[in-house]
Amino acid sequence: MTRPKNDNFLRALLREPVDYTPLWLMRQAGRYLPEYNETRRRAGNFLALCKNPGYACEVTLQPLARYDLDAAILFSDILTVPDAMGLGLYFADGEGPKFERPLREEWAIRDLTAPDPYDHLRYVLDAVAEIRRALNNSVPLIGFSGSPFTLACYMVEGGGSADFRAVKTMLYDRPDLLHHILKVNAEAVTNYLNAQIESGAQAVQIFDTWGGALSHAAYREFSLEYMQRVISGLKKTHDGERVPCIVFTKGGGQWLEAIAASGCDAVGLDWTTDIGDARRRIGDKVALQGNFDPMALFASPAAVAAEATRILDNYCGAAGDCGAAGAAGGGNTGHVFNLGHGINQHTPPENVSVLVDTVHGHRKI
Amino acid sequence: MTRPKNDNFLRALLREPVDYTPLWLMRQAGRYLPEYNETRRRAGNFLALCKNPGYACEVTLQPLARYDLDAAILFSDILTVPDAMGLGLYFADGEGPKFERPLREEWAIRDLTAPDPYDHLRYVLDAVAEIRRALNNSVPLIGFSGSPFTLACYMVEGGGSADFRAVKTMLYDRPDLLHHILKVNAEAVTNYLNAQIESGAQAVQIFDTWGGALSHAAYREFSLEYMQRVISGLKKTHDGERVPCIVFTKGGGQWLEAIAASGCDAVGLDWTTDIGDARRRIGDKVALQGNFDPMALFASPAAVAAEATRILDNYCGAAGDCGAAGAAGGGNTGHVFNLGHGINQHTPPENVSVLVDTVHGHRKI
Repeated sequence: MTRPKNDNFLRALLREPVDYTPLWLMRQAGRYLPEYNETRRRAGNFLALCKNPGYACEVTLQPLARYDLDAAILFSDILTVPDAMGLGLYFADGEGPKFERPLREEWAIRDLTAPDPYDHLRYVLDAVAEIRRALNNSVPLIGFSGSPFTLACYMVEGGGSADFRAVKTMLYDRPDLLHHILKVNAEAVTNYLNAQIESGAQAVQIFDTWGGALSHAAYREFSLEYMQRVISGLKKTHDGERVPCIVFTKGGGQWLEAIAASGCDAVGLDWTTDIGDARRRIGDKVALQGNFDPMALFASPAAVAAEATRILDNYCGAAGDCGAAGAAGGGNTGHVFNLGHGINQHTPPENVSVLVDTVHGHRKI
Repeated sequence: MTRPKNDNFLRALLREPVDYTPLWLMRQAGRYLPEYNETRRRAGNFLALCKNPGYACEVTLQPLARYDLDAAILFSDILTVPDAMGLGLYFADGEGPKFERPLREEWAIRDLTAPDPYDHLRYVLDAVAEIRRALNNSVPLIGFSGSPFTLACYMVEGGGSADFRAVKTMLYDRPDLLHHILKVNAEAVTNYLNAQIESGAQAVQIFDTWGGALSHAAYREFSLEYMQRVISGLKKTHDGERVPCIVFTKGGGQWLEAIAASGCDAVGLDWTTDIGDARRRIGDKVALQGNFDPMALFASPAAVAAEATRILDNYCGAAGDCGAAGAAGGGNTGHVFNLGHGINQHTPPENVSVLVDTVHGHRKI
């Protein structure tokens, strides 16, 4: 296997010289794109879109047709794993994801087992393979999963939550039960990500959307510990190429040093962290990904460009060697540009073009 | 004027020796107490409760009758200030606070002026005076206000928000307009807190509930800068006693050093920050307040006590001198125990007793 024609994303993750700072956007295939909404309408609903490899492939490629992005990310949902465990995922109108059978009873928790992805999540692996064929080695494909703790939040709460009362009551009261769920989730996530890698994913990201809701002590015990287990069980290479792993804990800015020591290749930052400080804090151990405030995409094109440039310059000032190692260009070493969280559904698509052009054009005089 | 009989709270804020670690709870007068719900029912609604000094006094004292708390906090709402500016505060059933006239037009923003608290917020000052009389110098009374930025969020959004799209679009696109709002808010908050101090508040807290939603750079420019202006304009003493000021930015754990340098006497921490690390990071410059996860109050009494003890020990281990300076007891020097956010309305009241007893009994062997 050879690297994709545009491998700047993989090179940035491995802290190799790049032609320019690569970027992709969390939730880049989504409701802000009219063509996505059209495909979703044809599919019938969100879950049908996720479960049909043809549709999943179609929407994965849509943002790449519009924008000069440096990676594709598998279109799927983080809750496919607990759905495959038998919890019964559904989407109530305007209410977000729900489970028919949330984990509340001890017997149900004790019965939980990690699903075989080649059996219960075949539709995801088929989508990965189909997207790889369609990409034709143009840019890398990112696979992903929710973190063990983030999945547990939904599994115990039975859906989204503002305060995580059910899962936190379990955490403080019956830590043994939560540890059991997390152990099973870690095994499930490891198998799921390895199956995505074997099916063609060239990098993987663990989305720890809710780890930041924990106390400092609980984050290490209940979220980071289980992400480390996943990382240590991941295939590090496939077909002779390194498969880098990104960890993104939203709200994890206070814990960067610990996250960077988890075994991952890159740490995703939300927009609250100063990316220059982050680089100084963790040294050159891992790459950094981020961290443009998704709400800044609602500003004028000039303001979008100014905010992106501020982040690129800030990183560069801290790293000290941006572009120095790259013969061809001036990209930031070890920096994948991204948003600090998923793109908002109301984002004006034309501002994404401004963002892409600003990042790719940075310090290319 | 003399200090209250129990002045451990004030002593902790001023980093003087204490008999034991004092505590109060954010939103300690509230819906988790049946007696509060009964008064609210008699008042008719939440706003009527806030605007009637007699009712406000009654509910302020309720938690002190039940629990051995070391401070009272004025019962009021942070949105009384923008209401006094003419924005028209109302509470839609089950929807939280709303404004009839949110700030969206440039002319309305240019017209904004700081209200005279002795005129438009007289009912708050009357409540402060009435509560002080009722407390009869037993424990100190805390006054409070929302931060200039947090008030601006509600004023521009027209209510609560999950993503702060309107205020952030203004921040990135028309920073001049947001700065104008913040300048007026800072003046209003300064005058409001000074009037509370003149009416009898013995300490004040600035609630920066939404500062943590900003990027690192924007937090300094749009939130911290204006809290510093407020602090520099506050009366530092009243009737011969120091009036300490606490700043609480929810989600501000990454910026503790900057907050501690704002001129405040104490920094409030949410539960995501390790309080021992916080003490090590900022040295003994200011006192710390916090930081028990409000959701841990849903656990068993034993788990509540264990989590409180963990925080007390953690602080003590970092401070190194807990109890050493206090002849009478073993309280943490410079530590006011509190929750990391407001108490949840469904909290079992009996667990609050466990928390109070654990904190007061810590290292009193």
